[in-house]
Amino acid sequence: MTARPTSLTETARSLRSDRRSVVEHTGEACDGLDDREPEIHAFVPESDRRERLREAASALDTQYPDPTDRGPLHGVPVGVKDIFQVEGLPTKAGSDLPTEALAGPEATVVTALREAGALVLGKTHTTEFAYFEPGPTRNPHDTDNTPGGSSSGSAAAVAAGECPLALGSQTIGSVIRPAAFCGIVGFKPTYGRVPIEGVIPVSPSLDHVGWFTAEVAGTRLAAAILCRNWPPKAPGTSDRPTVGVPEGPYLQQASSAGLEAFERSVETLDAAGYEVRRVPLLEDIEAVNERHETLMAAEMAIAHGEREWYPAYADRYAEATAELIEDGWPVSAGTVGDARAGRRGTREGVVETMDSEGIDLWVSPAAPGPAPEGIDDTGDPVMNLPWTHAGLPALTVPAGTVDGLPVGCQCVARPMDDERLLGWGTDFETTLATESEQ
Amino acid sequence: MTARPTSLTETARSLRSDRRSVVEHTGEACDGLDDREPEIHAFVPESDRRERLREAASALDTQYPDPTDRGPLHGVPVGVKDIFQVEGLPTKAGSDLPTEALAGPEATVVTALREAGALVLGKTHTTEFAYFEPGPTRNPHDTDNTPGGSSSGSAAAVAAGECPLALGSQTIGSVIRPAAFCGIVGFKPTYGRVPIEGVIPVSPSLDHVGWFTAEVAGTRLAAAILCRNWPPKAPGTSDRPTVGVPEGPYLQQASSAGLEAFERSVETLDAAGYEVRRVPLLEDIEAVNERHETLMAAEMAIAHGEREWYPAYADRYAEATAELIEDGWPVSAGTVGDARAGRRGTREGVVETMDSEGIDLWVSPAAPGPAPEGIDDTGDPVMNLPWTHAGLPALTVPAGTVDGLPVGCQCVARPMDDERLLGWGTDFETTLATESEQ
Repeated sequence: MTARPTSLTETARSLRSDRRSVVEHTGEACDGLDDREPEIHAFVPESDRRERLREAASALDTQYPDPTDRGPLHGVPVGVKDIFQVEGLPTKAGSDLPTEALAGPEATVVTALREAGALVLGKTHTTEFAYFEPGPTRNPHDTDNTPGGSSSGSAAAVAAGECPLALGSQTIGSVIRPAAFCGIVGFKPTYGRVPIEGVIPVSPSLDHVGWFTAEVAGTRLAAAILCRNWPPKAPGTSDRPTVGVPEGPYLQQASSAGLEAFERSVETLDAAGYEVRRVPLLEDIEAVNERHETLMAAEMAIAHGEREWYPAYADRYAEATAELIEDGWPVSAGTVGDARAGRRGTREGVVETMDSEGIDLWVSPAAPGPAPEGIDDTGDPVMNLPWTHAGLPALTVPAGTVDGLPVGCQCVARPMDDERLLGWGTDFETTLATESEQ
Repeated sequence: MTARPTSLTETARSLRSDRRSVVEHTGEACDGLDDREPEIHAFVPESDRRERLREAASALDTQYPDPTDRGPLHGVPVGVKDIFQVEGLPTKAGSDLPTEALAGPEATVVTALREAGALVLGKTHTTEFAYFEPGPTRNPHDTDNTPGGSSSGSAAAVAAGECPLALGSQTIGSVIRPAAFCGIVGFKPTYGRVPIEGVIPVSPSLDHVGWFTAEVAGTRLAAAILCRNWPPKAPGTSDRPTVGVPEGPYLQQASSAGLEAFERSVETLDAAGYEVRRVPLLEDIEAVNERHETLMAAEMAIAHGEREWYPAYADRYAEATAELIEDGWPVSAGTVGDARAGRRGTREGVVETMDSEGIDLWVSPAAPGPAPEGIDDTGDPVMNLPWTHAGLPALTVPAGTVDGLPVGCQCVARPMDDERLLGWGTDFETTLATESEQ
């Protein structure tokens, strides 16, 4: 099928104007699901979705007849990864655990979207507990391929045009990688910039909320609602960033086809007038990868132990997930402390290099290559790991294709430089959109 | 010396009226420190305190000539335990670490007090990192005795009438115990009810912000500023609580003199018409004590490891503090998870008993007995531990004396029942104030 993502900014503009009723638009969104879900499986099935949404849409139409009263996301249908608590919808987190065990108060970000006028179109499929055991979702660009994970359903839903915005989360590479595989924009803000309350934890010191849209402008519209202290007026893009390419063993983790595509992106940026500097970075990537894995395993053991999920339901966990928790169980408090200190060390090291080399933005492949074939494996998050580890804001924009499948250019900025990152991202999006497979 | 705490509500009322200038009042507060500090040592010395405060007071006088514009704590001098970050004042946390290593953004609650009009009179002495290694503070009721800890300076400052409000924190019994030893009111709200950001951590899942005042009404005034979602109109005290006495091994941890004084309080409540029920509770107190210690040690190892304080400065830690961290270092992630689950189990168990026995409020001795002699030991927090472990709101009100030293009655309510607890506390305060040593 041809993936046709819809623009969040255009959808929101249209719904805030007087032109269409929310009931009408929501009905069409449900029609879209009837049409595409049998192939994509982005959403967790829900028996009375259409009726639930009709009621909510009708309430919005009644309550806000005057366009000037409407919220910035008035009537916009959004997908929500099924690790976020949503009032009125059960949370399964892609697991076999009873929903009562996983229940909790609505996630802060979901409430924020609702208060902005959005309607929850549905829960989207996640890998089990946002780790690696995949759900049924398929890549809208080629349904033989994985959409990536763990935010599989959210990425596929936006890519298939089922909704113009979907929430995801990233602990290693669960937003940036599926966004790239699905040919859309994915954003994971600075660690701590977005409230994480009401999201089933993987590893609290590494968990980030993120989201998917068709275009960077849409991601910025959502950022203004979801990020703490987002300024009313976002900065312009007039100050062109100096771009860094992180040379060394980190970059070499990409596939040769992925690296070729990435080098074409770098050439495109260079040709467009960007100053590009190649700088050695993350020479200790093996240690970083190992530390990330250790910290994640230990914190997942704590999180799933403290809620008594794993002690009570160990036999319902997929093998790989149980293994991670078992690996984390014996990790010592001292090791956890050291790993968190190392995480800050990585962040400070990257920032120092940016300062000394005058770099505003790192670019790198959003994944080792395009989406792998099959849906039993969501692909490798290794290109995303160090940036998540360091808690730096990351954005991926579509950057051409490899073997007919989309790849993304991952842009990473300084901590709390989310606003400028999204400002610069708009021009990157335009510049790199001209690329196609050579 | 005679301890003469000053009322927060009266001080605030006077400063909000037109009667006195903040400059004048602040000057008197500084005079009070000159007078009492040589004996009490509640405050961390500060070279230009008077000048700093004169400027801040003068700014308030200039900015708010109209009483109706003034905040609820306009010009009120407050003490702040030296584990809270305060803009413009260094944090030492009672330790020998360099202040640069401990620096951070201002604590959310300190900013909230400032926004309500309060002036930070100074940092108050804490035991080292809010554990057990004492500072120089003495008990205003008898300077041969400890004020308790870890919030030693804050309790002593309020008891000595140096300020009508002071912030403390409690991880085992660091608010309730010193408040009782110093003959004042201490309050530790429900776990999570008060923002902990900007406070040097002991053990994040056990750390609570709390505070000290002369009277329950003052504590309630502060609660409205410091607690999340405090309702504009606090509930009345017309609904008399059914009072529970937690019989069994927990209670037996008190000294015989402490228990005698407590039984006099219970008789007084009974005579005042309260329904008192004696119910077995916390039969597993030994396991609770052990679990608390394990969790605290592990989380302190993580906290002091992740910030690289202990790895870099181990030789500057007092022996007992270093021992706790060393004990916590090898504790496994699985044990941390189990301990946190056990903590929830204790809370649920206490609440179930309250439900089944119709109890609204537990009373117990705020400490095993009155303040021990000497200032090398801040006393035993064992009477406070299970309530902190369970995250339940706790209030202590003065309840007579033992050997001429004050003791407190510790009142504990259901989770998030802070409002009613403070409502009931006012009558308890009056009822128990009639007690004196038999």
